[in-house]
Amino acid sequence: MKIAISTSSFASMDSAPIDKLIANNVEVVENPLGRRLTESEIITQLHGVDGLLAGLEPLNSHVFRSCPKLKAIARVGVGMDNVDIEAAKQAGLKVSNTPEGPTAAVAEMTIAAALALARQIIPANNALHQKQWAKSIGLGLKNTKVLIIGYGRIGRKVAELFQYFGSQVMIYDPIVREADLPDNMQLVDLEKGLETSDIVSLHAAGDDPILTSQNMGSIKQGVIILNSARGSLVDEDALIEALNDGRVASAWFDAFPEEPYKGKLTEYEQVLLTPHMSTYSVQCRKDMEMAAVDNILRDLGL
Amino acid sequence: MKIAISTSSFASMDSAPIDKLIANNVEVVENPLGRRLTESEIITQLHGVDGLLAGLEPLNSHVFRSCPKLKAIARVGVGMDNVDIEAAKQAGLKVSNTPEGPTAAVAEMTIAAALALARQIIPANNALHQKQWAKSIGLGLKNTKVLIIGYGRIGRKVAELFQYFGSQVMIYDPIVREADLPDNMQLVDLEKGLETSDIVSLHAAGDDPILTSQNMGSIKQGVIILNSARGSLVDEDALIEALNDGRVASAWFDAFPEEPYKGKLTEYEQVLLTPHMSTYSVQCRKDMEMAAVDNILRDLGL
Repeated sequence: MKIAISTSSFASMDSAPIDKLIANNVEVVENPLGRRLTESEIITQLHGVDGLLAGLEPLNSHVFRSCPKLKAIARVGVGMDNVDIEAAKQAGLKVSNTPEGPTAAVAEMTIAAALALARQIIPANNALHQKQWAKSIGLGLKNTKVLIIGYGRIGRKVAELFQYFGSQVMIYDPIVREADLPDNMQLVDLEKGLETSDIVSLHAAGDDPILTSQNMGSIKQGVIILNSARGSLVDEDALIEALNDGRVASAWFDAFPEEPYKGKLTEYEQVLLTPHMSTYSVQCRKDMEMAAVDNILRDLGL
Repeated sequence: MKIAISTSSFASMDSAPIDKLIANNVEVVENPLGRRLTESEIITQLHGVDGLLAGLEPLNSHVFRSCPKLKAIARVGVGMDNVDIEAAKQAGLKVSNTPEGPTAAVAEMTIAAALALARQIIPANNALHQKQWAKSIGLGLKNTKVLIIGYGRIGRKVAELFQYFGSQVMIYDPIVREADLPDNMQLVDLEKGLETSDIVSLHAAGDDPILTSQNMGSIKQGVIILNSARGSLVDEDALIEALNDGRVASAWFDAFPEEPYKGKLTEYEQVLLTPHMSTYSVQCRKDMEMAAVDNILRDLGL
């Protein structure tokens, strides 16, 4: 059997996922370009291939018609926006993803950003590299009020980590009920949450804005906003206004409406910006790659 | 009664500690210079004063002889290097400190530094502020081997926090026995710990170097070193050699042999430098200030 790998960094830190394919007598067809493939490039790569360990390239009905041998697609990751699931079903393809893979890594990165911003590490580090000794008193996480927006896999893990640091966690999620939460977490409506929280962390699905110019009017003075979910969840103009007048003390974005991001937030030193790399840890890549390999081997009957 | 406050930022974030003094009919004498006082300046401030909420100014026999009314000193913090305890005892002074105060804040700052370095947040943020989209795969804390050197109050808390992130924690502390540790932590000798750890975090007392040019020879390739304890615990020349040849991937220092620090580490981008501010969180300052206020009120019989 032939399996193509279209992600650009597969097994780059640890060869175990590729070793497992080879141990199952699979012939591996690697991404020849080392970057996200276009529609015509993925069609070329999939020529004569039985299964795909997929990245974010377009996988639509045209691709499926052009690659009649293809039987299974295993996304190395969670998001399936690039896969036309209905068309795949009609083409008889088995499709899988790795929903558990990124939870620990994204939650960890969210706490990393929360701590870096709350404890004011980056300006202190920049100053000391210029030989300026600039102490400032930051916000600790102990007893700090944190609003988690979206209580899915990642939101739950982030809530738990904040609690380990002694934070008081509130949850806003329209489909969660009070009974779904542990005793020491409070379910709130969005407005109350925004009015009282020192830190707001977004872990919601969908693309509709949640922090808008309207409800950003009621946020607590000096709040820290964290967004590892989707760039479009925060109205950027409203955020910039709130950064300008100091209502938002600082923010972290790892996801953007358009990527690579080159927008206005790059001009704000108090905004921590990372290039959609919350899942970029050695452990997370390996866990997701191994899970995707297991999925594709199962779906190809190997 | 009169109580002087010599720390420069007392109650600057929250007035509760001063409110409590006033509620006890205390006359407060604040630090007039807003910085660490010299011997002659503290003698001037202590004129006619009964108690001192003390910072890091010199408190020696000469000061005590010059301020005969002084009955009690309450350090706002842990370190007592600036207080001549023996001379204080001979002068009949009661002396206290706040050993519990900084634990949570220093442990939290250590995890902040570990995450920032492991997940490579600072170079990614710098690049994106220059509109460069530079993803890199960092080290997650899950299953990562962490060596904690010094298992006192802070070391214990740091060990616990690393475990919440799924790290495998080893302890080196010459006065700790295997039976003192939880089941899921391993007591190791220093050499074994250094050979196998991905992250080494220093929480030892004393000023003698622990990471020396000799034992730095056996550290694991690509290790991250964290030092919030004392600057002198790490031989700086040996560290710089290891940074130059890549054996040490990155490091964090919050304490330095001489402060303010202007040394060679400022030239290394992969070294995170903070100006002795691990205890600089709103919560920590307030907790330590309230504890010191309680101590001085008790020691003055109020």
